[in-house]
Amino acid sequence: MKNILILGSTGSIGRDSIGVIKENPERYRIVALSANRNVKLLGEQIRSLRPRYACITDTGRVQKLKEAVSDISGIEILSGVEGLIDMVSADEVDLVISAISGSAGLIPTYHAVLNGKDIALANKETLVMAGDIVMRLAKEKGVSIIPIDSEHSAIFQALSGHSREDVKKIILTASGGPFRNMGIDEMKRVSPEQALRHPNWKMGSKITIDSSTLMNKGLEIIEARHLFGFKGDQIEVIIHPESIIHSMVEYLDGSIIAQMGIPNMKIPISYALSYPRHLKLDLPTLRFEQLKSLTFEMPDYKRFRCLSLAMDALEMGNSMCVVLNGANEIAVESFLNYKIGFLEIPYVIEAVMSEHTVKEINSIDEVIELDRWAKHKANEVINRLRRG
Amino acid sequence: MKNILILGSTGSIGRDSIGVIKENPERYRIVALSANRNVKLLGEQIRSLRPRYACITDTGRVQKLKEAVSDISGIEILSGVEGLIDMVSADEVDLVISAISGSAGLIPTYHAVLNGKDIALANKETLVMAGDIVMRLAKEKGVSIIPIDSEHSAIFQALSGHSREDVKKIILTASGGPFRNMGIDEMKRVSPEQALRHPNWKMGSKITIDSSTLMNKGLEIIEARHLFGFKGDQIEVIIHPESIIHSMVEYLDGSIIAQMGIPNMKIPISYALSYPRHLKLDLPTLRFEQLKSLTFEMPDYKRFRCLSLAMDALEMGNSMCVVLNGANEIAVESFLNYKIGFLEIPYVIEAVMSEHTVKEINSIDEVIELDRWAKHKANEVINRLRRG
Repeated sequence: MKNILILGSTGSIGRDSIGVIKENPERYRIVALSANRNVKLLGEQIRSLRPRYACITDTGRVQKLKEAVSDISGIEILSGVEGLIDMVSADEVDLVISAISGSAGLIPTYHAVLNGKDIALANKETLVMAGDIVMRLAKEKGVSIIPIDSEHSAIFQALSGHSREDVKKIILTASGGPFRNMGIDEMKRVSPEQALRHPNWKMGSKITIDSSTLMNKGLEIIEARHLFGFKGDQIEVIIHPESIIHSMVEYLDGSIIAQMGIPNMKIPISYALSYPRHLKLDLPTLRFEQLKSLTFEMPDYKRFRCLSLAMDALEMGNSMCVVLNGANEIAVESFLNYKIGFLEIPYVIEAVMSEHTVKEINSIDEVIELDRWAKHKANEVINRLRRG
Repeated sequence: MKNILILGSTGSIGRDSIGVIKENPERYRIVALSANRNVKLLGEQIRSLRPRYACITDTGRVQKLKEAVSDISGIEILSGVEGLIDMVSADEVDLVISAISGSAGLIPTYHAVLNGKDIALANKETLVMAGDIVMRLAKEKGVSIIPIDSEHSAIFQALSGHSREDVKKIILTASGGPFRNMGIDEMKRVSPEQALRHPNWKMGSKITIDSSTLMNKGLEIIEARHLFGFKGDQIEVIIHPESIIHSMVEYLDGSIIAQMGIPNMKIPISYALSYPRHLKLDLPTLRFEQLKSLTFEMPDYKRFRCLSLAMDALEMGNSMCVVLNGANEIAVESFLNYKIGFLEIPYVIEAVMSEHTVKEINSIDEVIELDRWAKHKANEVINRLRRG
């Protein structure tokens, strides 16, 4: 029996994780849940799953949560980042599903590793911002980090049973998002509503916008770099609009191993929990004869500047990845709030990156500080833009 | 250093095998070669590779071969099936590449297993005709049988690192051959020249005709059954005209692992020799952005009756697979010699199958006897057909 903590249980990955766990009650038990602000859903999850701990990160809402579940005994309600840190260090927890969206996922995931908990990782920012530190710590603590991101799960599966020394390159597939074929003039006028309509995947709003700018793929390249340890030039991106092939590994003999399936996050979530086994999931089967066709094209780095910026940051060094990520978070938030246009997202990021000089980072505190700096700078750039 | 014997060195797989071995002189040494009738090419191969043994199966040509290499010392020239059996039992041999075409490959491959030699298997008839016997013997002798067929190599690679208990099904891809979209009336008039024009793969004439009738895929289903031990209903065929995905394994969670690559037999040959490693091969890279698209459709069992006949034979039992295979060999030969039409190939096989009552087979001798019976019957059917 694996005792599981879900960081971000009310989000898209969190809800799918609960679904997977419910299909396998003889294998998995949920012992702790966390949400940022969604008291209503967290309350319902507590009522149905009866975890030992629950944490609401927004401390202003803890009273409301306590009231909502006041009739339930045997549960400890925590709050704030401190609450998350307490939960990830609890003895009852074997494995942490890290599914908080964005940079907020870093601190609790880092502390989970510090406490020797195995990680099923959906929060890519943990590795984008602090890959070196977290991977080193995981090695030291004997912690296994299994990816949940569909692309990284695909690569993880395609590497299984083969030798990493024999890898020529890894090929990350990208749907290309909703603006794959849109001209650059039209892209200037894209609205948040348009950008939130992803062609294949249902996800949270931050990652959906990142998919539409291809920043998501850029962050995935950085994540893959840390997770699998390949060199930057061994990681390639190919646009595959149908999202059936989730990613591939090419070996030295030209043999390419791909992982495929319907676009449903339950598959990588389940594999991250059951690795190295594949457990039965109640999902529709991929019918190849019903697929129209699978197609591929090169990404357009000019229209999707975010992808080049991420590749640049990876080459420049860890601290630039922190800056890229922090600036992107603010830019995406501002785009969602109608403060900046779609093509101003890369503009903001590039402006912040140009103000940073790459330096060594050796602690999580330094990462957090740099993240704050980047976000502050991004807000400055956005305010300048808005003043015109 | 692996010491290698190539059974069928002058055929398509034999020549590609020599190419792969020459790229890795520090790992592989060719110690023995065999050919059926091609004295000229075998002589050249002996001159260039200097093996310890060489065998020409057609005993009438041994004198010619001896003369052709009379100036070369340190080589023993053998002949006939006896010569093959002597070679596969030689102490110097570590691994046998079984690349003889058709039922003639069974006896020497069986003896190689009997002598504890590892097998890189391209001769599918060994398993189609005597899968139970050979796989049981291989287990007893601690022999590993690694497939060279591109489809089985793909499945073998896609199973690597995953648990066989977790397999939902294996999906064999088929190009569909040159007559994939041809109407049945036109198929009646197909010539050997048309059937020998395979859209994607360059292979010997027997297997190319089998690809055009889809019997090749039928034989591969039977081979897969023995090689991997899955049930018949766990093996599926899908037409994939571009021959880029070489086959796939679907797991219980809906995750599908596929092996892909350019259609070049050097890739599976190399993997069979270097398993579990992938060694560098000097081949063009698959460029996904240059692929038009990958498409899939269900096979048409009505127009391609050979495929259903093979599936029927597999369900009926081993002895029926021997009959299917023997009758097919004669039918293909007769088609290539303009004795029967393209659609008479399945007619002949079905007629012979209908005269056989399934029985248990426990020895290679019984297999050979039944193969002779099926071939004799097939010739009878063909003669009746020709007399009209």
